Amino acid sequence: MALVWLTVPTSGALAVAFALWLARDVLRRDVGTPEMQRIGGMIFEGAMAFLQRQYRTIAIFAIVTSVVVGVLVGIFDESAEHGILTAVAFLVGALASGVAGYIGMYISVRSNVRTASAATRSLREAITVALRGGAVSGFLVVAMSLLGVSGIFAVYAGILGNSITETPFLIVGFGFGASFVALFAQLGGGIYTKAADVGADLVGKVEAGIPEDDPRNAAVVADLVGDNVGDCAGRGADLFESMSAESIGAMILGISIFNITGDKEWIFFPLVLRSFGIVATIVGILSVPFFTKGDDQDPMQPLNMGYYTNVVLSIAGLFLTTILMLGDNWYWFFFCGVVGIVTGLAFVFITQYYTAGAWRPVQDIARASRTGPATNIIMGTAVGFETTAATAVSIGVALVASYMLGSQAEIIVNGQEVNEVALGIFGTAVGTMGMLMSAAYILAMDTFGPITDNAGGVVEMSGSPEGARHITDRLDTVGNTTKALTKGYAVGSAGLAAFLLFSAFLDKVKELKGIDLAQPIAVDLAKVEVFVGGLLGVMLVFVFSAMAIKAVGRAAGSIIEEVRRQFREKPGIMQGTEEPDYARAVDITARAALREMVLPGVLAVGLPVVVGLAFRWIRGGEAGWESVAGLLMVGTIGGLLMATYLNNAGGAWDNGKKFIESGNVTDETGAVVKKATPWHAAAVVGDTVGDPFKDTAGPSLHVLIKLLSTITLVLAPLFVEKV
Amino acid sequence: MALVWLTVPTSGALAVAFALWLARDVLRRDVGTPEMQRIGGMIFEGAMAFLQRQYRTIAIFAIVTSVVVGVLVGIFDESAEHGILTAVAFLVGALASGVAGYIGMYISVRSNVRTASAATRSLREAITVALRGGAVSGFLVVAMSLLGVSGIFAVYAGILGNSITETPFLIVGFGFGASFVALFAQLGGGIYTKAADVGADLVGKVEAGIPEDDPRNAAVVADLVGDNVGDCAGRGADLFESMSAESIGAMILGISIFNITGDKEWIFFPLVLRSFGIVATIVGILSVPFFTKGDDQDPMQPLNMGYYTNVVLSIAGLFLTTILMLGDNWYWFFFCGVVGIVTGLAFVFITQYYTAGAWRPVQDIARASRTGPATNIIMGTAVGFETTAATAVSIGVALVASYMLGSQAEIIVNGQEVNEVALGIFGTAVGTMGMLMSAAYILAMDTFGPITDNAGGVVEMSGSPEGARHITDRLDTVGNTTKALTKGYAVGSAGLAAFLLFSAFLDKVKELKGIDLAQPIAVDLAKVEVFVGGLLGVMLVFVFSAMAIKAVGRAAGSIIEEVRRQFREKPGIMQGTEEPDYARAVDITARAALREMVLPGVLAVGLPVVVGLAFRWIRGGEAGWESVAGLLMVGTIGGLLMATYLNNAGGAWDNGKKFIESGNVTDETGAVVKKATPWHAAAVVGDTVGDPFKDTAGPSLHVLIKLLSTITLVLAPLFVEKV
Repeated sequence: MALVWLTVPTSGALAVAFALWLARDVLRRDVGTPEMQRIGGMIFEGAMAFLQRQYRTIAIFAIVTSVVVGVLVGIFDESAEHGILTAVAFLVGALASGVAGYIGMYISVRSNVRTASAATRSLREAITVALRGGAVSGFLVVAMSLLGVSGIFAVYAGILGNSITETPFLIVGFGFGASFVALFAQLGGGIYTKAADVGADLVGKVEAGIPEDDPRNAAVVADLVGDNVGDCAGRGADLFESMSAESIGAMILGISIFNITGDKEWIFFPLVLRSFGIVATIVGILSVPFFTKGDDQDPMQPLNMGYYTNVVLSIAGLFLTTILMLGDNWYWFFFCGVVGIVTGLAFVFITQYYTAGAWRPVQDIARASRTGPATNIIMGTAVGFETTAATAVSIGVALVASYMLGSQAEIIVNGQEVNEVALGIFGTAVGTMGMLMSAAYILAMDTFGPITDNAGGVVEMSGSPEGARHITDRLDTVGNTTKALTKGYAVGSAGLAAFLLFSAFLDKVKELKGIDLAQPIAVDLAKVEVFVGGLLGVMLVFVFSAMAIKAVGRAAGSIIEEVRRQFREKPGIMQGTEEPDYARAVDITARAALREMVLPGVLAVGLPVVVGLAFRWIRGGEAGWESVAGLLMVGTIGGLLMATYLNNAGGAWDNGKKFIESGNVTDETGAVVKKATPWHAAAVVGDTVGDPFKDTAGPSLHVLIKLLSTITLVLAPLFVEKV
Repeated sequence: MALVWLTVPTSGALAVAFALWLARDVLRRDVGTPEMQRIGGMIFEGAMAFLQRQYRTIAIFAIVTSVVVGVLVGIFDESAEHGILTAVAFLVGALASGVAGYIGMYISVRSNVRTASAATRSLREAITVALRGGAVSGFLVVAMSLLGVSGIFAVYAGILGNSITETPFLIVGFGFGASFVALFAQLGGGIYTKAADVGADLVGKVEAGIPEDDPRNAAVVADLVGDNVGDCAGRGADLFESMSAESIGAMILGISIFNITGDKEWIFFPLVLRSFGIVATIVGILSVPFFTKGDDQDPMQPLNMGYYTNVVLSIAGLFLTTILMLGDNWYWFFFCGVVGIVTGLAFVFITQYYTAGAWRPVQDIARASRTGPATNIIMGTAVGFETTAATAVSIGVALVASYMLGSQAEIIVNGQEVNEVALGIFGTAVGTMGMLMSAAYILAMDTFGPITDNAGGVVEMSGSPEGARHITDRLDTVGNTTKALTKGYAVGSAGLAAFLLFSAFLDKVKELKGIDLAQPIAVDLAKVEVFVGGLLGVMLVFVFSAMAIKAVGRAAGSIIEEVRRQFREKPGIMQGTEEPDYARAVDITARAALREMVLPGVLAVGLPVVVGLAFRWIRGGEAGWESVAGLLMVGTIGGLLMATYLNNAGGAWDNGKKFIESGNVTDETGAVVKKATPWHAAAVVGDTVGDPFKDTAGPSLHVLIKLLSTITLVLAPLFVEKV
């Protein structure tokens, strides 16, 4: 039995070692022609410069916030120790997230030229390099989360001597720190990437009439840098905090079962299960080359086969973990985990259906473009709204099924029975954990996207042979799909996790009020404070999205001005005799993005605190935490569906345009609709509208949802009147 | 004291008499030139033909639904009498809504030519005719609601001998019938109006290159008909069901206070307050000509002054009603009512800020159009999202304030005290009632919109003098504002009312479970069934909106084909030698709109029933009604904010375009941006996208929200397991 505990540090170390091995493998590879290296170098410098500046800003925010949080928790919880431990956990979580993001990003912007170089040789090699580069990020994120949570637990419980039931509540700050960094990383990265993209397009394609990725456009390097900072660093931070917050939340839920059974397994289960997930994912990643057949193959196929391998091994790992740890009734929880894993698969398929060209939704949008941009936008909006149905039904079925399966278990020790509700909620936690077992694989596929996208840019700008461009084009299409899948997966896991995080919040409230964790406590929607809290939660979702979308527009404006200035002051640029100042464009984009990320970030962090304190002050009694619970839960529902809409509408618009560009659409006369026709131009409008939706507002909402959970969990003492 | 009761039939009769007097006054007026009469005749015939066909369809649905509802309630409530009484109340509610809509519409499509004719003489006369025509509709709707609810109450209690505490539950079918008709009326009308508008524009302006309202366009009469059936009949049915459902809900809430005090006043208060509202509104309408000064005046000014008169008199009426009926602590409820009235005013101002050209939001959209349709859409979306803040905060403040004021009252009879929660909730009901006191005035202003819009079309098509066109143009601008205001008011009142309707639902659940109404009962968001119910509720909002938006696109397709066919088969149309077949275009639009209204309507009615029964069957116990409560409450929050977004984004896009057309925007060189420039074309895209948002999906969502309340209230026996 004791051997099970060893899996946690072992698999954590294994993940780090594997990531290092992958990194070494990628870095040893050929870096291509000098021209490729020059361009790769510019992207590398721009990305690292942005990341350093961004992390410096976030670090200042995080340090200030940790002090404020520590002081507030110390005062309201009437315990200086709680305040200090929470503040330290917050900083450790923030730091771990930053380190994982930084290293992952470092390798990612080193992999792009190597992928470009590999593309001059073979598709198979290019896939291997891009996937391994992405996997470095995936494994580091998982390892840092696992080692961070278990490490801080070991210190707080083992060294500082806190009890095993108290410690999970003390380390929630780790999750909050992680969400805090994730919010600003995703917002800043999301604004950067789309501001650069929209800015480069508007001033290059529209105003100057030069093609995409043209070296004469001063914003082109900023655009390539943006691919990395938005998708790679942002999503990594997003999944880092998902895993961390959900592990801690699930540990809290295990406490009420531990209180009766006395078995520590109920608390540590999430960490062990994640360890098995790591092993399953390593095999999955390593299996991909075996499924890669030749240059004619659809590159999505080996990636999918690796994912299926990972899924099958995850089920085996789940089987082992539940049977080893969860007692006689283990099989109910095994089924819960299977529900989670299947839900993960379902989200992968649903996202493909709604955003890939082979199916009706994208085709409808492509055809609606015939009558102009207005009908394109109307159809895309309707398709995006529709996609919420599959998301809501999948999450709903998964929650009800895992809850009902969990509550079937019967655990009776010394005549005391664990109540059905606690078991049901633990069931939803196991479901969530099951779904997140594949997180490293999904993240590897996600980072595959910006690496191949960048490789395409490098190939284009360095004037490489046609064959290489053909390979990177195919990889880029696959990268778009994998990026969309990750978003679907992130929404799905956020939906499943939401329920376990609420329950952890309520356990925290019970702990503060001195109520037995086994007692139920209601968040009554029929109370005016809960209802109004919910109303303000959904409002937050709308207003936060508006701010994120507007931020892109404003930041894009700064870039456009800069590129215009360079064209004006250096007439040689357009003739190709003078090189634009790429670094300055990168720098201006970075400044603008960092400036613009502040306001929505502050709103997200501030509103729950303001609402909770206002209701505590105005209405008193239970109104403080109840209003926050309403804001959290109803806001989560709104956020999940709004993110689904924004991500899928954006993805569908993007692929609607691509569907036309690939020559799949014919007009009344039977002729193929070409680029640069009004029909195609209408589809381009949809694509542009979708950019800030799917790459800034949507992904930031995933993080917002989980930030709401961790902030309320950590700041619960502010909202609960002690008896 | 007994005199107070007489106010209800008296003011109901007064409202009918006043409506008849207004109708007679309007119908006696000059009908203009023979050409005006010919065009007016076509609009009249088209509108009435659509309305008759629509009501025939709705009547069949309603009869079938009433039987199904009666049988289901009879079986599940184990009382044939309850089933029959509910079914009859449903039919009476449906019929009353239909009659009010039909007569109001009849007068409205008679007022348009008379307004056109008046416009050839003076602005003052044109305003008077249009407002009086609109007021017929407003007063009939209020009167039918008041007389319908009090009449059916009188029959069920007085003649059939049901107790005064039982009767409000028996007449909830009236509210459901009214919502049912409203849903289909608004959906059908909303689809009709925008399909005709978009279809006429695309095939006329874009394809054939002829101006708006050009008589050569076969869809032009359908377009003018659409203005009436969408805004006039739809919004009338919407407010009819608001008033009816909210009166009945407030009566239910009064029962628990009556149980302790024994004073019937607590139950009948809503009806008496409405009666005073009618008197206040009559004076408000009659005061408008006194504020009309001359042709240079902004026509919005006298309308606003009339509204303020109405508001001041409403406060006086509220003062009288509360002091006469609500005992020693009347003043707390007086303040609640004032909160509601002020909230109504706030919504009128908020809507103006976000959708009128004088302020930043609309100007931002106009300026964002410079860089093309994509930036126009992005900015409009962000502005629309932002507007949810003012809505959510206003509703939140109004609910908390009226709840807290109400709960301050102390009512102790024979040592028994009415509990704080019941008084607080009654306070929110009084707030809602206060806000709705001005409903007839708001509805008169709303119907003013389509009448002046039509008058403009009649003037244009009949080739009337320039001066008349100038007057109708100014009235049309005012009409757009008043239509937007009504939508803001409808959302605000739906938000306030939501809370009282939930509480009525919970009282119904208590009644079914045999629990004392004074006992609290929780809708616990932390339960999986409530959370998933809520998730499905917000999903319903998104999917319903998608369906409504898509329906417009499909129906517009049918019209475009028909107009193209007429151009092709009758080449004389374009030369002006042959007249298009307007009637056929009207007919095809009507068929398409009625076909398209079915699916979203069935989804809205069906989903709550399916969810409730599924949870009752799968999870058992309390899960049935709890899941429905979650769906209702969280769905309402989502629906309120989504409707706000759709209405305000649509309104802002529309006025963004108008802002440019009015010559308010200059380019870099300082030159005024003209029509038919790319800048203006980009703004037109936003306007077109906004059409189905603001005139189909948004208004239908208002009705959906309230339908959810009435359907769950009536079908509660299906979801509650009897002990």
